[in-house]
Amino acid sequence: MVDHALDRWLPPATQEPVRLHEAMRYAVFAGGKRLRPAIARAASLALGGEDQAAVPAACALEMLHTYSLIHDDLPAIDDDDLRRGRASCHKQFGDATAILAGDALQTEAFALLAARGGLRMVAELAAAAGTRGMVGGEIADIEAEGQPPERERVESIHLRKTAALFAASGRMGAIAAGAPDAQIDALGRYGRWVGLAFQIVDDLLDETADAATLGKSPGKDRASRKMTYPAAVGVEAARRRAAECVQEAGAALDGIPDPDVLIALAEFTVTRIR
Amino acid sequence: MVDHALDRWLPPATQEPVRLHEAMRYAVFAGGKRLRPAIARAASLALGGEDQAAVPAACALEMLHTYSLIHDDLPAIDDDDLRRGRASCHKQFGDATAILAGDALQTEAFALLAARGGLRMVAELAAAAGTRGMVGGEIADIEAEGQPPERERVESIHLRKTAALFAASGRMGAIAAGAPDAQIDALGRYGRWVGLAFQIVDDLLDETADAATLGKSPGKDRASRKMTYPAAVGVEAARRRAAECVQEAGAALDGIPDPDVLIALAEFTVTRIR
Repeated sequence: MVDHALDRWLPPATQEPVRLHEAMRYAVFAGGKRLRPAIARAASLALGGEDQAAVPAACALEMLHTYSLIHDDLPAIDDDDLRRGRASCHKQFGDATAILAGDALQTEAFALLAARGGLRMVAELAAAAGTRGMVGGEIADIEAEGQPPERERVESIHLRKTAALFAASGRMGAIAAGAPDAQIDALGRYGRWVGLAFQIVDDLLDETADAATLGKSPGKDRASRKMTYPAAVGVEAARRRAAECVQEAGAALDGIPDPDVLIALAEFTVTRIR
Repeated sequence: MVDHALDRWLPPATQEPVRLHEAMRYAVFAGGKRLRPAIARAASLALGGEDQAAVPAACALEMLHTYSLIHDDLPAIDDDDLRRGRASCHKQFGDATAILAGDALQTEAFALLAARGGLRMVAELAAAAGTRGMVGGEIADIEAEGQPPERERVESIHLRKTAALFAASGRMGAIAAGAPDAQIDALGRYGRWVGLAFQIVDDLLDETADAATLGKSPGKDRASRKMTYPAAVGVEAARRRAAECVQEAGAALDGIPDPDVLIALAEFTVTRIR
């Protein structure tokens, strides 16, 4: 449903500027897990939202996330040639087009929320994506490279770099359902814990998985001396912390009418390492 | 007034992530002409808007514009070391920080409009900044490099790359004043003509001015074989077209109660070449 809506929202690849639209679509339709959209939709449905209510939010979250992947993979940042199992956007289209495709996907995310989401969603997404959230976590991640790993610092990076947008996914889904503030906050806490679990698992997979499983180049974190969770506390403690986060995500749903899909989504993030 | 508001809105450079906030402020407070904010405020005042009404729109426009300058100057795009009279953002802070500072400034523009502008302004800014507007013009500009210059093509590039955001400046100022649609459209046409005049003059200055006057490296367009207006029609015809645009901008204000400042602003764009 979300892919169909993304396809309708994004300008067709036949429309000028063709190469830019191709690059945007290449990055968006590369077979991602759509976890953030899934959380937004599941949050909305768990709170009695209509079937399609969270689709604009879900699409905006995925476009915002995809922009961050495109820019993160650039040679100047993580310099990654592989993403979602194929050549990263700049490898396929060149650095200039990739920079602008990422820029345009961020713009489209806000355009979609302006047209179909509402002012509160614009504010939520901007807060999660900005310097106190995702982009702030990305720069902290870069600055931490090569420094002695510390649990508190890596958790603070993960909470901003990854968990902020997961939290916004829960919140925006709840907003789409017309939920009261207490439930919006609960779904935000849920999303935050799922996001932290997801990023810890991502760190673990970088150490243990191969490129085919991962869809991106493994071992990059260690090679670039990233401050990862397993580097800070060891593999076993990192696994335990991920499981703990999933527990906390479930606990955040206390009193939510129909939490089963949300709980399954939280558990899915850690099944990747089993 | 706009600089003061930008200073209050942007996170302080003392706040984490310090280097990112420093880079954002470095680029924003580099002594730009603030033409887009001036148009937004003048549009609002010309239509009876209150003194501060257009300040959020003005700040959002300047942040959006500054993000586009930071990314345009990157080595992968225009590779420009000089901007607004000093080292461009990536020369000062490195490419990774510059990419993320640009990203964050786009986010902050929408965050500000969500908090103080309103949904219609979010939609206007996103439309002007997206693939049918600014970013679309930027990629068309890159793709046109080295190709035989044509008047129609260069005008289409300029209208998207530059004039779309000037048009949004007029429209958002009018929206801030609570103006009816007919006046919003008129101010949009005004801004579009001013933007086209501005970009033609920018092309002319690149051929004739020195770095001290320009605040950026001159002669870059010719060196990178950009499709400029003077390259397409010659210097004299380009000058005439710029003057014509200023006339058209004035004509678009027909029936606007108090157009003097707007007319002066349109004329200012071409005085730079006298």
